[in-house]
Amino acid sequence: MARDQKEIEQGTTFVPKFDPQGLLSAVVQDVATDRILMIAYMDREALDATISTGVAHFHSRSRGRLWKKGESSGNILNVEEVLVDCDQDALVLRCRPAGPTCDTGKVSCFYRMLEDGILRPVNS
Amino acid sequence: MARDQKEIEQGTTFVPKFDPQGLLSAVVQDVATDRILMIAYMDREALDATISTGVAHFHSRSRGRLWKKGESSGNILNVEEVLVDCDQDALVLRCRPAGPTCDTGKVSCFYRMLEDGILRPVNS
Repeated sequence: MARDQKEIEQGTTFVPKFDPQGLLSAVVQDVATDRILMIAYMDREALDATISTGVAHFHSRSRGRLWKKGESSGNILNVEEVLVDCDQDALVLRCRPAGPTCDTGKVSCFYRMLEDGILRPVNS
Repeated sequence: MARDQKEIEQGTTFVPKFDPQGLLSAVVQDVATDRILMIAYMDREALDATISTGVAHFHSRSRGRLWKKGESSGNILNVEEVLVDCDQDALVLRCRPAGPTCDTGKVSCFYRMLEDGILRPVNS
């Protein structure tokens, strides 16, 4: 294994790897229930804002700008832990949400399950 | 809200939305522990293979081909539930893993936590 790869996988230095679009994936998980709430994308600016404020910020791909989750609704995500994966191109944000995370008003964006080709409500 | 958008968010029809690269994000979560194990990407082919076999398949961006997770190591992911998000561009695969998910031998790819700018092992 190349020395760089070893350092990325085993080291203590945080060297986030952004994709060609300048983004990495961030999964939001409720720290109290372990439920997955949403997936979004971060550029360097969003990552820095998240780390410096302790509140989740993303890069809105549709609006092409920094997006503080909950900036309109007030349903912010307080970040308690940031987990980093082996190749440092994905994060898990373990959060305490201030309210429902999904814009539909649901607790999680993952409120449906695929069953025999049909979407059905998740029991929760 | 446009009728299409309403159907996507509230309907029972599965109409997965792939990005311009033909991919959607899939988060793998252990169905027994709720721990997040990895994040990967699926194209239409990987999604179809996952649904038809009940074993997680992804699109390897580095190798540019269909990738059955565990094809070399044997550490496959048996998919018990597929959750779909509001805009149908991301999935959660709730799985029963046959072994450690991470190629490093760790249970999860998310084995480190960012703390004061430094990566530290997750207690687990």
